[in-house]
Amino acid sequence: MSEQHLDDDQTLEADVFARDCASRSVLQNVASRWGVLALVALREGPFRFSALRRRVDGVSERMLSQTLQALERDGMVHREVLEAIPPRVEYTLTELGAQVADRLHALIEVLETNIDTVRAARSGYRGNG
Amino acid sequence: MSEQHLDDDQTLEADVFARDCASRSVLQNVASRWGVLALVALREGPFRFSALRRRVDGVSERMLSQTLQALERDGMVHREVLEAIPPRVEYTLTELGAQVADRLHALIEVLETNIDTVRAARSGYRGNG
Repeated sequence: MSEQHLDDDQTLEADVFARDCASRSVLQNVASRWGVLALVALREGPFRFSALRRRVDGVSERMLSQTLQALERDGMVHREVLEAIPPRVEYTLTELGAQVADRLHALIEVLETNIDTVRAARSGYRGNG
Repeated sequence: MSEQHLDDDQTLEADVFARDCASRSVLQNVASRWGVLALVALREGPFRFSALRRRVDGVSERMLSQTLQALERDGMVHREVLEAIPPRVEYTLTELGAQVADRLHALIEVLETNIDTVRAARSGYRGNG
């Protein structure tokens, strides 16, 4: 019975290295240029669209909107329309989105902590020509 | 003296949310579509170009080559030409690249484990129209 259950469980088969696996397209959405920053910003708490746009320095309205739609569709972000005049839209992380954002934050910490190593590598790089 | 040292340390100022910060461009390179997969594949050990291309299902020669160059330039990947006939080129993770790849692997594990949640969200998504 429990083996049957295992066989039926598609979760065990998810493989980001396989080109058609759903996990690869989710990865692309959460790891996208603006996806990473939106998710990590939302760890700080709920954001309205305009405030989130200010936090994610440099993103256009259109790109942020597309990014949030993809994240909402994948179940990472919850979008709530609050009754108010004018109506307000607020974005929060789902439980899964929070887990993903924690992993992205850990990644960013490594990069920010080691930025001097990256700078040194860049100035020493000569290409493969 | 130690305060002076802190002031001089650019590391403390790296902020991925600032559009001109070097950490943002590194983030884009390691979180790129093929950057993630190449780094995580290289956790398994050294790879020759052709073997890595087979592991990262779907990547073109040109894209993998560009990806590896960016990762090498940022100090994530070490490229070594081995003396042989014909010469062989082998890619390995640097110490920093290994740290980054571990964080990316943790991210992928969350996504693969929760792929059913993602699928459910996708089938329930109705857009914001």
